[in-house]
Amino acid sequence: MALAAPLAISLGDPAGIGPELIAEAWTKRETAGLAPFFVVGGADVLTAAARTRGLDLPVSRITEPSQAHAAFAVGLPVLGDEDCNPTFGSPDIAGAALALHSLATAAALASSGEAGGVVTGPIAKSKLAVVGFTQPGQTEFLADACGLPHEDAVMMLAGPSLRTVPLTVHTALSQVPRLLTHDLIVQRSRIVARSLARDFGLAHPRLAITGLNPHAGEDGRMGDEEQRIIRPAIEALRAEGLAVTGPHPADALFAAHERNGYDVALCMYHDQALIPIKTLDFDQGVNVTLGLPIIRTSPDHGTAFAIAGKNTASPGAMIAAIRMAGECAARRAA
Amino acid sequence: MALAAPLAISLGDPAGIGPELIAEAWTKRETAGLAPFFVVGGADVLTAAARTRGLDLPVSRITEPSQAHAAFAVGLPVLGDEDCNPTFGSPDIAGAALALHSLATAAALASSGEAGGVVTGPIAKSKLAVVGFTQPGQTEFLADACGLPHEDAVMMLAGPSLRTVPLTVHTALSQVPRLLTHDLIVQRSRIVARSLARDFGLAHPRLAITGLNPHAGEDGRMGDEEQRIIRPAIEALRAEGLAVTGPHPADALFAAHERNGYDVALCMYHDQALIPIKTLDFDQGVNVTLGLPIIRTSPDHGTAFAIAGKNTASPGAMIAAIRMAGECAARRAA
Repeated sequence: MALAAPLAISLGDPAGIGPELIAEAWTKRETAGLAPFFVVGGADVLTAAARTRGLDLPVSRITEPSQAHAAFAVGLPVLGDEDCNPTFGSPDIAGAALALHSLATAAALASSGEAGGVVTGPIAKSKLAVVGFTQPGQTEFLADACGLPHEDAVMMLAGPSLRTVPLTVHTALSQVPRLLTHDLIVQRSRIVARSLARDFGLAHPRLAITGLNPHAGEDGRMGDEEQRIIRPAIEALRAEGLAVTGPHPADALFAAHERNGYDVALCMYHDQALIPIKTLDFDQGVNVTLGLPIIRTSPDHGTAFAIAGKNTASPGAMIAAIRMAGECAARRAA
Repeated sequence: MALAAPLAISLGDPAGIGPELIAEAWTKRETAGLAPFFVVGGADVLTAAARTRGLDLPVSRITEPSQAHAAFAVGLPVLGDEDCNPTFGSPDIAGAALALHSLATAAALASSGEAGGVVTGPIAKSKLAVVGFTQPGQTEFLADACGLPHEDAVMMLAGPSLRTVPLTVHTALSQVPRLLTHDLIVQRSRIVARSLARDFGLAHPRLAITGLNPHAGEDGRMGDEEQRIIRPAIEALRAEGLAVTGPHPADALFAAHERNGYDVALCMYHDQALIPIKTLDFDQGVNVTLGLPIIRTSPDHGTAFAIAGKNTASPGAMIAAIRMAGECAARRAA
């Protein structure tokens, strides 16, 4: 098996919990089985953030991603000198500029193949807007960086118990019914199936698709989207040879014995997909972007400014995100 | 503490899994700590259903509920001679008639105080329609039996991990935003708070109310129902002295550490309330009707005709429903 290029980690907002969790992940690299990674910028930020958790973090400054493999054993590799001096919990413009630089550089290195994938630390979109971040989120930023339309980037939430994909995401619930279309379901399902085969080692992934309405509509008695939109989309996907079931009543689909029946659940809207993941796998949820040429994961939490620097944030999701990106990168390199 | 009147159990559809689970619950009455109960009708049904699970069930025929306490120790008390001879898995009209008789009688006995509460076995509404059952479900049937409007009967799902209340229930998702009103939230919350105090021993129950939209709308960026409807309703409830928080982003509200912060979650629609319960407490979920003068619980599953008579249905939810009704009845009798 070829050695995968090291993972590039973007710092996230320096005033948030990202840097302290990245630092702690490095200290747990061996027990957690993490592939080599480096952070783009923020050596001082990481050192200070580590100190808030009682960690004396050695930093290995590097000038090329290829130096990360050797440096990783003795310190947390940091690429480049860009840095700042944040007050944890109080985001500022210098921090936003560093976060944007870190994200853009990590994306570019993954696109060029110098990095095996990107793990993004959490940002606050509203804070980054002042330094020119115009996308709705990091997922769309990365789609742009890869030269692809935003709709090609599909968000998957993955935890130890479950994988889910919300087919509509950050939209008012009242808009969801009109946003659901045959093409949306078919195209996203294809991307999900392809990505699970390529990056997750599931040659014939089993997709379970939910209904929109209670009990999946009960044959049209409570809403007709299942009959008009979802069922025909499922039939089209099956005709292509994909292993797709549904529409399933969403309430029962995430019980333990049901979860054995599929590899990923495609859900109609945000809470339908995120309630089960966060209920079962809180602190371990990974946000994976499918459909891009690069591998991208991130911990499924925000900057949590309120607890930054207080040594209370759980590193579980950051560690899981780094581990998952490393596993995906190893599969591509194999 | 006064002795509570025995619980009345309605048989449910004789061809479904109700009778076999009631029979099994009686055999486990001591280890499960179940208060005395009797079934209205169906002695032969129960005997045959027990046999499919390898149980040799003694039946104690009684003619008055007051005989149930003594009879319960030696056999499953069955009130009255109404009966039928079902083929498990194949509902018929005779079975529907028996199910309706059993339900109506159990409700009447609870209303008169001869029964301490009702536990309803699962029915198939479409099957009972042919014998004159016109309500949308058993909950509405019981509200009618108590002479109350349907909206006074509030469904709560309760499991070992969590209690949730869906504020809208069996309606298309597209209808949910227009059904949410200030009065709906306020009135249902009052009923929930009162019922938890009276029947569940929670003198000052803590109510967590969800948002409708992703992240509870993020200050109006994704839907405005939180600002227009939900937040003012919460403020009105607080002004009455109730312990109400929210609107909470629903995705994170059901994680283990969040669940310590409230006694019941009031949710905006069916799946938002039922996904977390069924994900965490499948096979142990109890459907409780709040707001009626009588106590009513039921297992949170249907007739499951496909597995009736096959000795595979889990008795967990039936046992939990009987136990919960007994606990509520004991509190009222205290």
